[in-house]
Amino acid sequence: MNAELITIGDEILIGQVVDTNSAYLATELNKLGISVIQITSVADKRESIIKAFDDAALRAELIISTGGLGPTSDDITKPALADYFGSKLVTVPAVIEQIESLLASRGVVVNERNKKQAELPDNCEILRNTAGTAQGMWFKKEGRVFISLPGVPYEMKAIFREEIEPRLRQRFTLPTIRHTTVLTHGVPESEMATVINDWENSLPGNIKLAYLPSPGLLRLRLTGKTTGDAEALTIAMDAEVVKLKSIIGKHIFGYNDDKLEVIIGKLLKENNLSLSLAESCTGGMISLLITSVPGSSAYYKGGIVAYSNDVKTTDLSVSPYTILMNGAVSQAVVEQMAEGIRNRYQSEFAIAVSGIAGPTGGTPEKPVGTTWIAVASKKRIISRVHNFGEERGRNMQKAAIAALFMLREEIMDCL
Amino acid sequence: MNAELITIGDEILIGQVVDTNSAYLATELNKLGISVIQITSVADKRESIIKAFDDAALRAELIISTGGLGPTSDDITKPALADYFGSKLVTVPAVIEQIESLLASRGVVVNERNKKQAELPDNCEILRNTAGTAQGMWFKKEGRVFISLPGVPYEMKAIFREEIEPRLRQRFTLPTIRHTTVLTHGVPESEMATVINDWENSLPGNIKLAYLPSPGLLRLRLTGKTTGDAEALTIAMDAEVVKLKSIIGKHIFGYNDDKLEVIIGKLLKENNLSLSLAESCTGGMISLLITSVPGSSAYYKGGIVAYSNDVKTTDLSVSPYTILMNGAVSQAVVEQMAEGIRNRYQSEFAIAVSGIAGPTGGTPEKPVGTTWIAVASKKRIISRVHNFGEERGRNMQKAAIAALFMLREEIMDCL
Repeated sequence: MNAELITIGDEILIGQVVDTNSAYLATELNKLGISVIQITSVADKRESIIKAFDDAALRAELIISTGGLGPTSDDITKPALADYFGSKLVTVPAVIEQIESLLASRGVVVNERNKKQAELPDNCEILRNTAGTAQGMWFKKEGRVFISLPGVPYEMKAIFREEIEPRLRQRFTLPTIRHTTVLTHGVPESEMATVINDWENSLPGNIKLAYLPSPGLLRLRLTGKTTGDAEALTIAMDAEVVKLKSIIGKHIFGYNDDKLEVIIGKLLKENNLSLSLAESCTGGMISLLITSVPGSSAYYKGGIVAYSNDVKTTDLSVSPYTILMNGAVSQAVVEQMAEGIRNRYQSEFAIAVSGIAGPTGGTPEKPVGTTWIAVASKKRIISRVHNFGEERGRNMQKAAIAALFMLREEIMDCL
Repeated sequence: MNAELITIGDEILIGQVVDTNSAYLATELNKLGISVIQITSVADKRESIIKAFDDAALRAELIISTGGLGPTSDDITKPALADYFGSKLVTVPAVIEQIESLLASRGVVVNERNKKQAELPDNCEILRNTAGTAQGMWFKKEGRVFISLPGVPYEMKAIFREEIEPRLRQRFTLPTIRHTTVLTHGVPESEMATVINDWENSLPGNIKLAYLPSPGLLRLRLTGKTTGDAEALTIAMDAEVVKLKSIIGKHIFGYNDDKLEVIIGKLLKENNLSLSLAESCTGGMISLLITSVPGSSAYYKGGIVAYSNDVKTTDLSVSPYTILMNGAVSQAVVEQMAEGIRNRYQSEFAIAVSGIAGPTGGTPEKPVGTTWIAVASKKRIISRVHNFGEERGRNMQKAAIAALFMLREEIMDCL
């Protein structure tokens, strides 16, 4: 089964909003064995919306649109849909009640605009929105299914999970599509392609490989498809991963949706170890990654964002003399920071980062992007210097990822 | 002038990568007065790519594609383009040299795959990529301009800035499109629509309004367009903003791309004030927002992520008795945290946040999402409790934004 996604909204076309809804829907549909063959973003204009629906219906059996269902007057999707599917808008009392009780729980009184949200086409299945006031709609036309969803991401997701996924599973016989993603670190894309060339060329016809590089890591994604034996596909794909592992095993740090911060969290938790952080140029990014994992309070003691030299000396016990002689971005300082926070918070492991995030503050010897990272354990302190380039946001991100990889290595070394 | 954007790549269609390139290009093209009328994402398949180009050429005069130019074998865009524009691929010696020198600067030796990146269609203008090995290409066909760019965001952006923008300005007469965005806080979308209804209905025909809600704030975007007098458009739009200000002035906190953390940074810097942070459930997110602003070291002393009660008592001088009696997520604790960090880091202002981020840790009295925020100044400590709902990431984000708004209010109150 093929699907197309349509995003409705001027805010996408002027670049003010990034379309994350399509990525979510594509991921979920793929898991169900439904291939997304095109994603289209169009303006909040009746003719654009209708043209997009018509075009998509030529290629796909399932068309899902997001956006254009808000209570304010820039939204014209609902009347356009009613016309397109030959229905008229009627007020649905059950939806009014639902909106009233939702808003009451937030202490908000229903106004006329909210009530308009209960006007819905009379020939659609209503897909109940428990998280907001704009309902989803499921239409059928000429053998195609059309679904219209609100654009607010968490409302759209709730409707997909609660209303759409069960219906798709029930109503359609779906082929099997499987993805296995191998997460690697330390080998650039073009070098990886050379190393695994023979293996790649020997893949069976129904298994495809894609390279997905991102800062600090490279994901290798295998996609297998079958209308026949799902079990056989699983076995074939697992066998390919085993072969790949024998070629690049030491560069693999995880699979599929594994996140580095989750992998590290598990390592720490399972071994009853703890972590503390002393961040300068990363400004709290490593702490945020660590705490984005539910349950991280079991192993994360806390961190200090030491943005001033005062904080480095008073709270991290860095010697003022060391700063004076070497500068704050130096091996000596970053090692003292790591040891300082480890002692202060009594953790088994500690990371410290000190760098020049930019755009100013660089010198010929220490250009913008120069970053020292240290990891301290009971056993020792290791430190490395990197240059992550000139872009502030990007080099903060690269520093955070490099620091987490260093930590992972050191934990595994200590086990 | 109308443009369409085409994103090429299976990784978008399976949802593994979010298309941020289109948002960037749409923003930049709009600034030049070029309207993006559609964005399409298609698979790494020759027929899909060519169909997308053909369809886009029916509607737009400028077509920009991103993606599909990497060195690995899942990329088939370049040969498809060469065919489409009736050219053949030839190796360009100058590009080989450029790739060699780029990779040499990174300490990498050129391999055969890298060299293939210098094979380019013989009838395009090469758009030089100073940040990577895949060059951009500028084609002309039947009165349309087609541009193909690599998908790696920072390479794509560098080529746009350095090669494309100057050419577009030089070669085309562009109409004027202006956007003014008014940033508001404290009024939900449907209430706002009621309050500004009369003003909205009286807008001139060539000025459109859109509502752009996001967690904790609502942006109102005015878009004006003219092929005539640009100055008159500017004056008309400014006049509308003045009218809007007279209606909802106290809810406006900024304009256009103003970011809350930048606005706060300016307030602090201009008044020679400083800030420190004590974060629990936000895990470093506020710190990261503050330090994402270049030059923030001038006013940000530093922060402590107090994930354990130990850190709260030893580093933030929270009384263990207060924690015992009230729990860590309480008004008394968050106020002590704010005062504790303010004293420790000797800053004029301090924020403290303590909440239950979830998914576990909630109780009937303090469900997941319960968050206390305090702001301390020389004058006083203020604190508020919120409930931001059950989703961990979202309620961390809402807490961070609410805390920054509280800080802004308090700074302005103290000036």
